[in-house]
Amino acid sequence: MSTAISPLAPKKYPKMPAIEGVRIATAEAGIKYKGRTDLLAMVFDAGTTVAGVFTRSKCPSAPVDFCRDNLAGGKARILVVNSGNANAFTGKKGRESTTLTGKAAATAAGCTPGEVFQASTGVIGEPLDSGRFSHLLAGLVKDGKPDLWTEAAKAIMTTDTYPKVATATVKLGDTDVTINGIAKGAGMIAPDMATMLSFVATDAPIAAPVLQALLSKGVAPTFNAVTVDSDTSTSDTLLLFATGAAARRGAPAITDAKDARLGQFKRALNKILKNLALQVVRDGEGARKQVEVTVTGAKSARSAKRIALSIANSPLVKTAVAGEDANWGRVVMAVGKSGEPADRDLLSIWFGDNRLAHNGERDPDYSEEATSAYMKRDEVRIRADIGIGRGKATVWTCDLTKEYVAINGDYRS
Amino acid sequence: MSTAISPLAPKKYPKMPAIEGVRIATAEAGIKYKGRTDLLAMVFDAGTTVAGVFTRSKCPSAPVDFCRDNLAGGKARILVVNSGNANAFTGKKGRESTTLTGKAAATAAGCTPGEVFQASTGVIGEPLDSGRFSHLLAGLVKDGKPDLWTEAAKAIMTTDTYPKVATATVKLGDTDVTINGIAKGAGMIAPDMATMLSFVATDAPIAAPVLQALLSKGVAPTFNAVTVDSDTSTSDTLLLFATGAAARRGAPAITDAKDARLGQFKRALNKILKNLALQVVRDGEGARKQVEVTVTGAKSARSAKRIALSIANSPLVKTAVAGEDANWGRVVMAVGKSGEPADRDLLSIWFGDNRLAHNGERDPDYSEEATSAYMKRDEVRIRADIGIGRGKATVWTCDLTKEYVAINGDYRS
Repeated sequence: MSTAISPLAPKKYPKMPAIEGVRIATAEAGIKYKGRTDLLAMVFDAGTTVAGVFTRSKCPSAPVDFCRDNLAGGKARILVVNSGNANAFTGKKGRESTTLTGKAAATAAGCTPGEVFQASTGVIGEPLDSGRFSHLLAGLVKDGKPDLWTEAAKAIMTTDTYPKVATATVKLGDTDVTINGIAKGAGMIAPDMATMLSFVATDAPIAAPVLQALLSKGVAPTFNAVTVDSDTSTSDTLLLFATGAAARRGAPAITDAKDARLGQFKRALNKILKNLALQVVRDGEGARKQVEVTVTGAKSARSAKRIALSIANSPLVKTAVAGEDANWGRVVMAVGKSGEPADRDLLSIWFGDNRLAHNGERDPDYSEEATSAYMKRDEVRIRADIGIGRGKATVWTCDLTKEYVAINGDYRS
Repeated sequence: MSTAISPLAPKKYPKMPAIEGVRIATAEAGIKYKGRTDLLAMVFDAGTTVAGVFTRSKCPSAPVDFCRDNLAGGKARILVVNSGNANAFTGKKGRESTTLTGKAAATAAGCTPGEVFQASTGVIGEPLDSGRFSHLLAGLVKDGKPDLWTEAAKAIMTTDTYPKVATATVKLGDTDVTINGIAKGAGMIAPDMATMLSFVATDAPIAAPVLQALLSKGVAPTFNAVTVDSDTSTSDTLLLFATGAAARRGAPAITDAKDARLGQFKRALNKILKNLALQVVRDGEGARKQVEVTVTGAKSARSAKRIALSIANSPLVKTAVAGEDANWGRVVMAVGKSGEPADRDLLSIWFGDNRLAHNGERDPDYSEEATSAYMKRDEVRIRADIGIGRGKATVWTCDLTKEYVAINGDYRS
C-alpha cells in the first residue's frame, strides 16, 4: 500500500458542517487494518429518504445486492460501511453476512432491516465475518455525533492517500439546506481491493423518487465520467440520503423532480458529485497528473463519451501524459480504435489551447515549445474535435505511471 | 527504444527456406533509423494472388487505404515496406506519397500500380517523403534474392527486440508447398509508433478469393486474439501472397475454399498465423510473461471472446501477473465489467491447473503454495468458466510491467 500522499491531493480541506438528522460514529473493528478506524455507522432520523446507483458489474458484491433490494423502499435509518474486506465473490456466506449485519444494524437503530444500507470495501473473495463488528453497532448508534464527516471519510479509506469530502449550502425555497458528501477510491481499484464508495446526505426534504431522479441524472457526467484504469469495481456504490430536517426551518417538501425550486440544489449536488469524482481521479494509484478529455463534434453525445473514454483509457495516451509528451498520434489512434463514427481527415486535436493536428494532418503552425511547457502542468486538457456532428462529452482520468504498476504489481497477496 | 531482447524471445530461429516466385531485397534508406535496414521490397512472379486483412481503426494510415483499394484486383507483383514513418494521419500528403511509391514500385517491377502493395510503420503524423526511397526500388527489384526472409523481418522492425519469422512445408495434393511468414510489432503499439505488420507468402497455386477466405477465417483465433495493451494501431496490415509456382511441380490449382485438398495447408497457415501472433505478444513492450486467457461456459463464442479480452486487457490482471500474484479477485472483476451475460454464483477460475474459485466462492481446497509456484512461470494460463453455456474462446496477452510505462512514458518525442 502506498503511504505517500498524492501530489494532486487538495491543498486544503473544507470544514464539514453538520447535517441535521444525521449522526456519525466510527470504530476500530480490526477487520483487516490495525491502528485505524475501519467501521462507519451513519444514523438517520426517521423520515429519511434514499436514492442509490451501483456498479454495472455482472459480479456485484453482496452489499450491493443488499442495497439494491432495499432501495425500492426508499427509506433509510442507518448506513454501515466497513473497510478491509469487500464481501465480494463470497457466495452464500456473503449473503449470510449482509443479512446478519442488516439485522444487527436494524436492532441498533430501532428500524427494520429494509431501512438499513451497507457497503464493504477491501479484499475480494474473503468471507466477511459480520460478528467481527456487529456487536459494535449499538454503541456506534448511541455515540453518533453530527460533525464527524471527515472521520467518516477516513474510516472508509483503503489505498486512498487522503480522505475525500465536499460540502455546499444552498437555498431550497427561502431556506438554507446543506449537502455533504464523502467518497473513497484510488481509482475504481486498488491492490486486491476494488471499490469506489460515495455517500452524500442532505437535510433537504426531498421524496425518494425525486432524489433518485436527481442522482441518476447527476452521476452520468460525474462519477460515470471518471476512469483511472478502465477496471470497473464489483462494489461501486453511491448513496444519497435526505433527512428532511430542514422542513422544520421552512424548507419546502419536494415531491416532483421538475419542481423549479430545485434549481440551486441540483447544481450544488452535481458540483459535489463532480468534486468527489475528481478527488477519486486525483488519488488514482500512482497519479501525478489529472487529465481532462473533451470530445466535440461527434455524431452524438453518447458517441462523444465513448471516444472520450477510449482516449482516457488508452495506456499509450496515459503513459504519454506521464512522460509529459504531447503525443497526439496516440490520440488519433484512440479515436480510431473507439469504433465510433469519425472521419480521419476532419479530425483536430488540442493539448490545452495548443492545436497540434487539424483537418487530418499535423497543424503546421503548432509550437513544440509552448506545448512542451503545457505538458509539465499538473492538470492536462486534451480535446479532440471529430468534425462530423455536435455530440460533446468530457471525462477525467489520471496519467499511468510506474508507481501504478508498482502498487498493483509489486504487491503479493 | 528498448535494446534488451525480450526474455520471451524464441530460443532458436527456424532457417527460412525460399518460396518459389518470391524475391526479397532490403536497403538502408535512412528514413529515420541510421545504421540498419529500413526498406523492404518483396517481388512476386506474374500470376501471384493476394489476400489481406487490415486494422479496423476509423483513422487508418494512407498505405492501409492504398492496399484496400488494390485488394479487389487480387493480384500482386511487389510489396514495399518501410520502417521509421507510418504515413498515418498525414492527410493529402500521405495519399500523394502512397501514389508516388505505387508508381515507382510499378515501374521497378514492370507491373501496374494496382499490383503494388505497401505498408509503413513508425512515427504517426510525420509526412513520408516517397522520394527518400523510391529511387532505390529498381535496384532492389534487380538484386532480389529468394532466401532473405529473416533479413526482411529485420528491415520492418521498429521497437521489436527480435525479428519474427515462421515457416511450414506441407502437402497440397501430392506436392510439397511452403508457407513463410514474417511479422513486426511489440504490441499493437510502440513509442510514437503504431503498427502490427505481417506478410505471409506461399508457392501454392491458390486463387485470390480462396486465399482471402482462408486468411479472414485464420485471423480471428490468431492475430485478432492477441492484445498487448488494447491499443489498436492505425496501420495493422496482414497480407498473404500465393505465387502458384508449385503448380509447375504438380500442385493442384485451388479455386474453391471448400476443396478438401486444402486441409493440411489450412492447418499450417493457421499455425503460422498463431506462431507469428504469439511472437508479437512475446515481444510486447516490457513483457516478461505470456498470458493465455481461456473463457469457457459463456453464452456464445462471441461472448466468451469479449470476456477473455476484458480479462486480457485489464491493467489490474496484467499487473497481478507481473507481480506473480494469483489475484483471482481481479479476474472476477474483469468478468463482471465485460458486460457479458454471467452469473457470479456459477463462476469458476483457474490459474494453470489450480482452481482458485468455484461456484462463486473461493475454492476451499486450493493450494496457495502450488499456485504461487505456478505464477513464477514464463507462461501463465488463466481460465474462467462462466457456467452458463458452451461458448469458448482463447486470447493471448503479456504482463504489464514498469518497463512498459518506461518505454512509453519516459520517451519524449
